[in-house]
Amino acid sequence: MLLTETADKIKGMEIRGAGRIARAAVEALKGHALSFEGGDLQKFREWMEDAAELLVQTRPTAVSLPNAVHYVMIGLKGAGSVGEAQAEMVRRVERFVRDSINAVDRIGEIGARHISDGDVILTHCNSEAALACILKAGQVGKDIEVFATEVRPQNQGLLTIRTLNDAGIKTNFIVDSAVRHFINSIDLVIVGADAVAVNGAVVNKIGTAQIALAAHEARTNFIVAAETYKFAPRTILGELIRIEERDASEVLNPEVSKGLPHVRVRNPVFDVTPAAFIDLIITERGAIPPSLAYLIICEYLGWGIEEFHKAFQIDDKNQE
Amino acid sequence: MLLTETADKIKGMEIRGAGRIARAAVEALKGHALSFEGGDLQKFREWMEDAAELLVQTRPTAVSLPNAVHYVMIGLKGAGSVGEAQAEMVRRVERFVRDSINAVDRIGEIGARHISDGDVILTHCNSEAALACILKAGQVGKDIEVFATEVRPQNQGLLTIRTLNDAGIKTNFIVDSAVRHFINSIDLVIVGADAVAVNGAVVNKIGTAQIALAAHEARTNFIVAAETYKFAPRTILGELIRIEERDASEVLNPEVSKGLPHVRVRNPVFDVTPAAFIDLIITERGAIPPSLAYLIICEYLGWGIEEFHKAFQIDDKNQE
Amino acid sequence: MLLTETADKIKGMEIRGAGRIARAAVEALKGHALSFEGGDLQKFREWMEDAAELLVQTRPTAVSLPNAVHYVMIGLKGAGSVGEAQAEMVRRVERFVRDSINAVDRIGEIGARHISDGDVILTHCNSEAALACILKAGQVGKDIEVFATEVRPQNQGLLTIRTLNDAGIKTNFIVDSAVRHFINSIDLVIVGADAVAVNGAVVNKIGTAQIALAAHEARTNFIVAAETYKFAPRTILGELIRIEERDASEVLNPEVSKGLPHVRVRNPVFDVTPAAFIDLIITERGAIPPSLAYLIICEYLGWGIEEFHKAFQIDDKNQE
Amino acid sequence: MLLTETADKIKGMEIRGAGRIARAAVEALKGHALSFEGGDLQKFREWMEDAAELLVQTRPTAVSLPNAVHYVMIGLKGAGSVGEAQAEMVRRVERFVRDSINAVDRIGEIGARHISDGDVILTHCNSEAALACILKAGQVGKDIEVFATEVRPQNQGLLTIRTLNDAGIKTNFIVDSAVRHFINSIDLVIVGADAVAVNGAVVNKIGTAQIALAAHEARTNFIVAAETYKFAPRTILGELIRIEERDASEVLNPEVSKGLPHVRVRNPVFDVTPAAFIDLIITERGAIPPSLAYLIICEYLGWGIEEFHKAFQIDDKNQE
Amino acid sequence: MLLTETADKIKGMEIRGAGRIARAAVEALKGHALSFEGGDLQKFREWMEDAAELLVQTRPTAVSLPNAVHYVMIGLKGAGSVGEAQAEMVRRVERFVRDSINAVDRIGEIGARHISDGDVILTHCNSEAALACILKAGQVGKDIEVFATEVRPQNQGLLTIRTLNDAGIKTNFIVDSAVRHFINSIDLVIVGADAVAVNGAVVNKIGTAQIALAAHEARTNFIVAAETYKFAPRTILGELIRIEERDASEVLNPEVSKGLPHVRVRNPVFDVTPAAFIDLIITERGAIPPSLAYLIICEYLGWGIEEFHKAFQIDDKNQE
Amino acid sequence: MLLTETADKIKGMEIRGAGRIARAAVEALKGHALSFEGGDLQKFREWMEDAAELLVQTRPTAVSLPNAVHYVMIGLKGAGSVGEAQAEMVRRVERFVRDSINAVDRIGEIGARHISDGDVILTHCNSEAALACILKAGQVGKDIEVFATEVRPQNQGLLTIRTLNDAGIKTNFIVDSAVRHFINSIDLVIVGADAVAVNGAVVNKIGTAQIALAAHEARTNFIVAAETYKFAPRTILGELIRIEERDASEVLNPEVSKGLPHVRVRNPVFDVTPAAFIDLIITERGAIPPSLAYLIICEYLGWGIEEFHKAFQIDDKNQE
Repeated sequence: MLLTETADKIKGMEIRGAGRIARAAVEALKGHALSFEGGDLQKFREWMEDAAELLVQTRPTAVSLPNAVHYVMIGLKGAGSVGEAQAEMVRRVERFVRDSINAVDRIGEIGARHISDGDVILTHCNSEAALACILKAGQVGKDIEVFATEVRPQNQGLLTIRTLNDAGIKTNFIVDSAVRHFINSIDLVIVGADAVAVNGAVVNKIGTAQIALAAHEARTNFIVAAETYKFAPRTILGELIRIEERDASEVLNPEVSKGLPHVRVRNPVFDVTPAAFIDLIITERGAIPPSLAYLIICEYLGWGIEEFHKAFQIDDKNQE
Repeated sequence: MLLTETADKIKGMEIRGAGRIARAAVEALKGHALSFEGGDLQKFREWMEDAAELLVQTRPTAVSLPNAVHYVMIGLKGAGSVGEAQAEMVRRVERFVRDSINAVDRIGEIGARHISDGDVILTHCNSEAALACILKAGQVGKDIEVFATEVRPQNQGLLTIRTLNDAGIKTNFIVDSAVRHFINSIDLVIVGADAVAVNGAVVNKIGTAQIALAAHEARTNFIVAAETYKFAPRTILGELIRIEERDASEVLNPEVSKGLPHVRVRNPVFDVTPAAFIDLIITERGAIPPSLAYLIICEYLGWGIEEFHKAFQIDDKNQE
Repeated sequence: MLLTETADKIKGMEIRGAGRIARAAVEALKGHALSFEGGDLQKFREWMEDAAELLVQTRPTAVSLPNAVHYVMIGLKGAGSVGEAQAEMVRRVERFVRDSINAVDRIGEIGARHISDGDVILTHCNSEAALACILKAGQVGKDIEVFATEVRPQNQGLLTIRTLNDAGIKTNFIVDSAVRHFINSIDLVIVGADAVAVNGAVVNKIGTAQIALAAHEARTNFIVAAETYKFAPRTILGELIRIEERDASEVLNPEVSKGLPHVRVRNPVFDVTPAAFIDLIITERGAIPPSLAYLIICEYLGWGIEEFHKAFQIDDKNQE
Repeated sequence: MLLTETADKIKGMEIRGAGRIARAAVEALKGHALSFEGGDLQKFREWMEDAAELLVQTRPTAVSLPNAVHYVMIGLKGAGSVGEAQAEMVRRVERFVRDSINAVDRIGEIGARHISDGDVILTHCNSEAALACILKAGQVGKDIEVFATEVRPQNQGLLTIRTLNDAGIKTNFIVDSAVRHFINSIDLVIVGADAVAVNGAVVNKIGTAQIALAAHEARTNFIVAAETYKFAPRTILGELIRIEERDASEVLNPEVSKGLPHVRVRNPVFDVTPAAFIDLIITERGAIPPSLAYLIICEYLGWGIEEFHKAFQIDDKNQE
Repeated sequence: MLLTETADKIKGMEIRGAGRIARAAVEALKGHALSFEGGDLQKFREWMEDAAELLVQTRPTAVSLPNAVHYVMIGLKGAGSVGEAQAEMVRRVERFVRDSINAVDRIGEIGARHISDGDVILTHCNSEAALACILKAGQVGKDIEVFATEVRPQNQGLLTIRTLNDAGIKTNFIVDSAVRHFINSIDLVIVGADAVAVNGAVVNKIGTAQIALAAHEARTNFIVAAETYKFAPRTILGELIRIEERDASEVLNPEVSKGLPHVRVRNPVFDVTPAAFIDLIITERGAIPPSLAYLIICEYLGWGIEEFHKAFQIDDKNQE
Repeated sequence: MLLTETADKIKGMEIRGAGRIARAAVEALKGHALSFEGGDLQKFREWMEDAAELLVQTRPTAVSLPNAVHYVMIGLKGAGSVGEAQAEMVRRVERFVRDSINAVDRIGEIGARHISDGDVILTHCNSEAALACILKAGQVGKDIEVFATEVRPQNQGLLTIRTLNDAGIKTNFIVDSAVRHFINSIDLVIVGADAVAVNGAVVNKIGTAQIALAAHEARTNFIVAAETYKFAPRTILGELIRIEERDASEVLNPEVSKGLPHVRVRNPVFDVTPAAFIDLIITERGAIPPSLAYLIICEYLGWGIEEFHKAFQIDDKNQE
């Protein structure tokens, strides 16, 4: 697939999901790198930097996309020839793809160890990584029970209870606002993440922060399952993670809305759970306390502080 | 209306709503009292006690019903003749009905004084008393804005936003789990109550406790609007207020449920907000801190500790 | 002194201080009552009610003034003749004056019992009642040490350290913002009150709430010394206690202000300490937890809920 | 039994236990009252007041003793003749004795209603009233399990587990410091009280406050079972409840102590649990929030504020 | 000493204590490495890996043992010959032994700097590292006082007070449950650790978590003294640190137990103190906040994430 | 300028301010390095170490000074000749100076991204770095409003409001103790730092900790702006940051003091804000959570644990 084709599909939402976007982007970079002709290293660099820029701009608020692109691009750094650079970049692409695919399994293994026989677990929304922990615990024979929330307004809870039901795990389905009522009978909360900020704050499906607060109040452990490419490097430079608000019609029937001129729907997709409510973040690289998000960004993702400014050209005027 | 007719209508849910049930019951007592013939005071007492018993048993978990009946029945106490007793009971019925009708207005007046010009208020569910505070503040010309929740699974939020829209009050409609996300822009939370326990804990629509927790975390005032007949005397004797669970089909389509044998819906209607999260309870008798619920029960409702055991014949074996 | 003369002096701030205002007002009522001629009880009532109204209107936001006037006026209630009414009112005036004068001593005695030998006490502002506790503890031979704050912007701390120095009590003088730095070496905080609301919240000199918060964080006891006439009955009806903002020049030299067009001084005199931070309120009637403020208002001050509306004619449009 | 005989036995600890001391004292008063000869009411008053004084002085720090004596002595108040006074005092003695004996049963009934089927309950020390709640719950057929602590240094936990074992209740025995480790599997904590202060703080066996803190941290309900005569009226006047320190040898073998000149044993018998950690206090008069301790003192025990100073003659110089 | 001999002594608990076990194991590795004959590097690797495996399996739940073995084994990594590998491993063994022996002194020096003249310190159990801080502070002339707990059920507090007494340090001996009672007069808590998890949670003697909670409530600093080999690498992979329960007879006389069929002793040796209650962990490498445990594991102990899976072969089925 | 001249000026406070002192010191080292004659590397080392020692001793409690000197001195490490060493040191001096000058701008850029349009920001004292964030937000066109405190006793708030006024930013000026009163209308607190300890605790102008506490209570974000040279390496070795107390006359007129023999002024310049109250520390190297202070010290400042002991020769006897 050509670079521009991939870029268009990402932009047009044909390719979606943090993991799939990231993998498509690096595959496109690989094809693009291998299609370069000639031996001028400087030209190759520019050729690749243009490509990287193009990809990153398709979804300027995504977190996995620049992480993936950057991971591959540092293959350019020490290379002495175009061939060396191509080889290193290909190696990095393959590793990224492999790691990304393995990440959920790895997280599942690590997370399942935090689940004890007899535990009652609560999850919110429909995170592949969070479910992997629960499913793995079930697979290794632990006797567990789950509470799953409805997840208004998109009702992703329906997907979650289907998955759990298919795995034969005893599941309770509750409305989002019933969490505090049941929290004292819950041993562990596991949720996913859409993004993790440098201070360990986790951006996830609306309602997550409220659950974390209720868990904290009741001394119930709260764990986040997040692939490393969910960690947001730009937050090191102070960028705030934007909380998108989606269409009002998800919450209120437009026919009803029409008759209510003084009523406005506010429909934020995410909220922010502070690090103080999170016991651990489980990544495919191991479990860490949330305050070490910075290390994940720097060590695993390979971002250096110097590169940040260059890489992102953050435009302060557009900051919310 | 005959006593038995009223009893049947309460039992059959033809008469519903805490206030309406209470008023119907006392009116029935009045009719019953006046229909007594002869001058034997002892017989009159038994005649009335049987009637009271009949009414209270129609809805054994209601709070307003025994409160109302008891309020009238203490009219029997000091009377020297049937005529005196009838007169006092009629007086008490009329006062109860009048007070009950006026209570919401009175609460609205008191509560509105807690709302300052420019305030942003959050409410949950569709409490007449809580809305009275907000509407009254709007009527006296305060510039206010409201956040109203969806209130899953019965969506009473739709009623609330209609009422607020009709009053021309700027309203934001959000899903239940978005409360913590917005709480920092909210100045005051006002909700109603289904019952108030002796320690000031408030039983109200599921989700209320979570909102109270989020308000507490953000130092946002949280106020409960509750008519005095919502205070539950039996909690003084240790009785727990039962949290009813309603039908699964309110939360999950039965067709979907059928296919999910490992999934069980849990649908509690209420939750319990501890007194520590409540700044004030506004009754028609004035604003009090939640820890004074006991006083409301004893002073205003006229319950003495001795009467509790007699009146309720609490059966410990049926206790949950 | 004539009624109007007293009213003018209160209005013109010639008479000031919560206790002195209250005593002057009841003395004026006494003189006014005794000056009534004739035996028409109904006329006497009106004569006194006009006087009460005049006095209360001199300082519409004061708390001690309506409390004192009301205390005397209930002497009118059961009287069968003008003479009886006069006698009862005189009796009430004398009792109020005597109690008010004794209150500080009584509070001192009670509060001193909470101070143990070797205690380090912090006080803020210059409360006669709070100092009475400390001085009394010193007088009975307890070895104590005090931290006193500066109390910006009016520097009442200077008065406090003078009083403590004269009593030979070892005193440390600190800026207001140093409280949290020293709180771990402090055993007890004692402050006064300007007003106490029905939910036990205490209105006192700006900075008090911050000290209470720091004490709470460090598990240091926090005690309020308040005469019963500081309890604000109108808060039962939802009235908020107004937090006066004083002149900018107390904080910033007007010459400096002039050159700073974008700068505005905010100078609130009081802040509100929530009941949850207060271990006890010491009144001349005994020590109570803050949540019993309601009882002080009803029992000791003699306010009934019915009288509130009549007595105050709260005008919702003027509510802040 | 003669008055002096009873006084001696209380002093000499032949009669012990809060309830037994109280009952012995009032019986002694009764005998003493009936032994008065002649009709001089004033003499009779002095005769009884001397007796009351004698009894109260036998154990100056006890709480139940002055409560009981005072309860009987108010029988003197309105009497018009010696005969009337004697009759009223006898009536009060008999009522006190009967109520005191019934109190534990009544508390058990009320407290058992707070225990749900399947609950795991923790108790500390060996409180008759707290155990009554647990035993009653077992008797009415609830399936419960208990954690009981060792209770160093006197090991009263051994008595507790024997009682529970005899009742066939599944019991776990743990060291005192293991409470926080197990608290997440505990649904309810029930303990007794040695004294309750006016602000709702509960004085109980050393370790109680730590358990209450751990329960609070984990949102586990914490309930105190306390007969009304445990409420300490003198705390209204600011008196602190003295925390006795017992002999070092209870904690450390004196032989060992001898060899350790730099080591000093500190052996406080009680600690103070703040009201904020207590959900309810269950008395034989009903369940109340801790902040209503004041009401129990005033209403049920019949102490008026005026009587306090007279009754106790608090000597500030002896205050700790 | 032969490798197998050491392994047997560790297994048979002849060699005990985290430090001694670790040092014996690395010395055994050294002897084993030097006893290898021939120059086949691949064989040497296997020779050593078998030895490492044997040692680690002697105490599968210990933390210091795999840390020590791993530290030495990474000497194998870059070596080009058997001789090089042996030399590097010997160097590492010697360094480990030296560092381990010096660690307590180093911790003592660092920790003592946190103790100010006049401080009152509380310690729990009998940690060599924690005591080193206190003793060092005493040695450099600081005037300090200590509270030491009894430490049920094994009474290690007796060892602690002997050590402190011998050093001439003023010491108070209290039962475990008296900590909250005294915490307001304590300036600093210092305890040791049995293991530190990746999120900074500290596993230490039962009761530690309760003390940390009480210290947190009272804003009292809480410091952990822990040699770096106490940090548990497997927690990065999600492994939970097992909380051993020891024999019932430590808590309850078996003769007594026999008569109590419904009573079961629960005797956990350790509990878990969350990172949020810990101000600093003092290691021989310096003081760190608990959330940096991960860094200690990775940097100082030389564990890389890739090695974890290989090294431990965690078997999920055996997970508790 | 000669080395000794610079040293004298730093000592004599002619050169002041953390940044200026640091830059002067490294410039002096540069001059001193270049003035070395001959090629004996060992002598050069000693020559430079003496100089470093001299400079560091001018202000033994400063944090920026040893950081700056150390940063340059590690240039000595790998050098093979005097020339190489000089070159590397010069390079490091220039980089330090440049970075230090750019740091405030960089912090301003990063911090401004945390300020949203419409935000109300509170700042305390007069931190160049904190103001840079606010001013930058204003410059990029965000509509903001500021609350600035008076900052007793030196009134640095006057400087702050002048700066903000000149930038045309709407500013409110309040006394220090009014912060909690206004905190609910504040969106973000930004302050500077005098030093940052290894556990992320921030030492800053007295009053900062109280503001942080109030912000924490109200869920208001609290951000610290601090150049990396404010991070205190010696805290890794347990050294406490000394809280200087300044002259009494800053707080109390000496004439007044004279007449008050029992009064002593306590005038600490700084207080300590715990990491738990700080959401982020913004350095010129990016935003980090406070618990990563250790990383800043080790990675950016180039301190290794081994060097600490050598470099500082901490003298335990002088420890406070």
